[in-house]
Amino acid sequence: MIPLKTKWGLYTDFYELTMAQGYFYCNKKEEHAVFNYFFRTNPFKGGFTVFAGLQDFLEMLEEFRYTEEDINFLRTYGFGEEFLDYLSGFRFSGKILSVREGEIIFPNVPAVQVEGNIIECQLIESMLLNIINFESLIATKAFRISLVAGNRPFVDFGLRRAQGLGALHATRAAVIGGASGTSNVLAGKIFGIPASGTMAHSWVQSFENELEAFRAYAKINPHDTVLLVDTYDTLQSGIPNTIIVAHELEKEGYRLKAVRLDSGDLATLSKKARKMLDNAGLSYVKILVSNQLDEHVVKSLLQDQSAPIDSFGIGTELITGKTDAALDGVYKLVESNGQPKMKFSDNIEKETLPGKKQVYRCSDSQGMFLADAMLVAGEPPEKADRIFHPLHSERSITTGRLQKEPLLHTVVKKGQIVMDGKSPDEIHRYLLQRAASLPDEHKRFISPQIYQVGISQKLMETRNALTGEFFKSKNRKDS
Amino acid sequence: MIPLKTKWGLYTDFYELTMAQGYFYCNKKEEHAVFNYFFRTNPFKGGFTVFAGLQDFLEMLEEFRYTEEDINFLRTYGFGEEFLDYLSGFRFSGKILSVREGEIIFPNVPAVQVEGNIIECQLIESMLLNIINFESLIATKAFRISLVAGNRPFVDFGLRRAQGLGALHATRAAVIGGASGTSNVLAGKIFGIPASGTMAHSWVQSFENELEAFRAYAKINPHDTVLLVDTYDTLQSGIPNTIIVAHELEKEGYRLKAVRLDSGDLATLSKKARKMLDNAGLSYVKILVSNQLDEHVVKSLLQDQSAPIDSFGIGTELITGKTDAALDGVYKLVESNGQPKMKFSDNIEKETLPGKKQVYRCSDSQGMFLADAMLVAGEPPEKADRIFHPLHSERSITTGRLQKEPLLHTVVKKGQIVMDGKSPDEIHRYLLQRAASLPDEHKRFISPQIYQVGISQKLMETRNALTGEFFKSKNRKDS
Repeated sequence: MIPLKTKWGLYTDFYELTMAQGYFYCNKKEEHAVFNYFFRTNPFKGGFTVFAGLQDFLEMLEEFRYTEEDINFLRTYGFGEEFLDYLSGFRFSGKILSVREGEIIFPNVPAVQVEGNIIECQLIESMLLNIINFESLIATKAFRISLVAGNRPFVDFGLRRAQGLGALHATRAAVIGGASGTSNVLAGKIFGIPASGTMAHSWVQSFENELEAFRAYAKINPHDTVLLVDTYDTLQSGIPNTIIVAHELEKEGYRLKAVRLDSGDLATLSKKARKMLDNAGLSYVKILVSNQLDEHVVKSLLQDQSAPIDSFGIGTELITGKTDAALDGVYKLVESNGQPKMKFSDNIEKETLPGKKQVYRCSDSQGMFLADAMLVAGEPPEKADRIFHPLHSERSITTGRLQKEPLLHTVVKKGQIVMDGKSPDEIHRYLLQRAASLPDEHKRFISPQIYQVGISQKLMETRNALTGEFFKSKNRKDS
Repeated sequence: MIPLKTKWGLYTDFYELTMAQGYFYCNKKEEHAVFNYFFRTNPFKGGFTVFAGLQDFLEMLEEFRYTEEDINFLRTYGFGEEFLDYLSGFRFSGKILSVREGEIIFPNVPAVQVEGNIIECQLIESMLLNIINFESLIATKAFRISLVAGNRPFVDFGLRRAQGLGALHATRAAVIGGASGTSNVLAGKIFGIPASGTMAHSWVQSFENELEAFRAYAKINPHDTVLLVDTYDTLQSGIPNTIIVAHELEKEGYRLKAVRLDSGDLATLSKKARKMLDNAGLSYVKILVSNQLDEHVVKSLLQDQSAPIDSFGIGTELITGKTDAALDGVYKLVESNGQPKMKFSDNIEKETLPGKKQVYRCSDSQGMFLADAMLVAGEPPEKADRIFHPLHSERSITTGRLQKEPLLHTVVKKGQIVMDGKSPDEIHRYLLQRAASLPDEHKRFISPQIYQVGISQKLMETRNALTGEFFKSKNRKDS
């Protein structure tokens, strides 16, 4: 967890506190509520999203309290003393169900379900959204890169272009998605992620000439030298000097690790550099490239241009989740005091599905994911045998012959975390296992196939009953 | 400052540490270096950038040290004991010049100049870039919004879609750019920014009906109620219920503050809602809108559609700096041991300008900004009387009759901050004053006029001499 010198109770939107105070003084503070977290659109025009951020969120939730200083701060905003007293003893005491971190998830299907009194459910909303939206965005971006990088490693180079301290959680999420390491030393320490890096142009420039700069670095780090070859001229200076230094290292019994190309046409330069290195007997020297890469550039370099690149350093696009910058996840009340609730909208796609739920993933006999079924919580999995389109009740699919696996697992019970902590790398391995079951048509970058999502008959009936009531009362007013 | 429970020494790219170790063991640790921070492209296809993040960076710089735990962590990576010993006593002891926070800045002109021994200059690079790139991006976005919002306030609503803890610095930067407050309570506390907010859809849904929900909220917060009117139906339910509650409040001697529209067509809805409120004698009730706003939508609502909107809540686009997500600022070595240095590139626009500099802003007799002149440090301002295009020496402009104002001021001397701290709001007022001197043609959103930037004859000659030497040595190798 990022070691902030404060509790997290103020890491929330102000309206969570005004609403909490409202519930408190309306004597609603013991009312039971259920909220669902879901998102509406896969990022990057993609066909799936990687769920990440759960563990960070839960660790922060354990520290979601109010210090005396926090209470004094809130007092300046005029909150009532009884409410402030309540806050000073506050801690989340509810239940949380969630899909596993590293799971492949889809739009409109709840990935997290929070149950508790309405105040505690409300206060934690902003932090949940902040962490899970962001880490899921970055894990998805990283996994998209890994899909085209194949077995070539890529490393997060993004600290300098990251959104402030967002760099820290982003690095963790990048590793969940498939990055093999990071340049960010603090993130490496906090999350146990390998940190790496060798030299910038300034190293080369600070010496009389490039050859001297390369020699000096290699002498101090003979086991681990990656030479940055584009300070002056990649092919006329960087690679020739690399060859000299690599041969000098060989005489000392060492092998130069790699060169890094950081500008120019990476396809052309990598091919020419590869040939020069090979001709000098240095086929073991790897080629690392960086400079404004994303999944589309990596794909083009490897698949369209067969560039002989061994690994990638990826900065801005990975660490900020360009071109999207945010996942549109929301957190909606679905049940209040046992009554299913929904939000209506002129835009029918923005209406919410009422009630506490369980999600079943339906897979074929090969284990490939075919559809996600949302059921009313407590319905047996057989109720997922026929599911209905969430917006068009007249459309249904039969999933009776498919395997059903529940996706929402209890991760917090009476305020206590009941799942085991995992390293980002372990979560990545879980992602790999799940993603292997996702058909390729959902993984492609251009016009991916839309994954099927449906609701049980009972959930449909609940929704239709609430909608019917709503329109009846609305039409009464209209007439 | 964000109260992290650690020093900041590890908030750096790993290669800064490997290079620092290299300089240390090469006996270069006392070598003097100068680095320039600048960016290459204005964000959002705009004509200017707002400089922000300086004070946060400097406060973090004061805490840029290595704890014993940090040293032990670095030991696991095999750093040498003498170097670790050096790091354990490390603190920045150099000099920093910078433009003022809130200044209007332009591509390729150094906004920060760092001078010191090469190790200290190198170690702080990543943190400087991380904070200043990000805050400048967000301050620029916020100021663009303020340009079209005019005297209508807008508030940062972005915590839930922010890039993790990036939310905190982003909120500060949003206020520097022109936001009047934030929903983010922790950012409000850390940076002294007014926090505000009232209710979400969940508040409305948790009651039997909307009218009851509105009444309950208004009863508890009679002085400060903003009713969210789109949970069921804005015009048929939200506004009619608002009118009832506002009249009830009047009887108690209170005035309802505002309604918030959060979905649907904001232009149409705000006009109809305004008319309904006015007809009910509630012309004092303000209209606040939110939902996927940015400077273009705000402009369209106010200027093209004359929507009667009083204030805005702006989330994702403001807090993440969409559609850019990052400013492309870089930090380049320009002098080493008194020798000017430059980086060459196949792409001439990526070459750097050598040497320690001062920047003079040239203004006309009305005080309007016309050009920025880069001079070799120590040149008198008259040397800015004729300046040359940075890439095309044959082009020059005469600026003799213009007023000249130095932009780079000493902010750190021998490692100590020598400028006064300012609140985000004070910095915003400085921005307003500076922006008033920026001609409108640089402020427009579509194809803004490019601001003129030039270099002194001496800087041009230094650059040309280094380039000449470089090509001479290069051609020698070629032949």
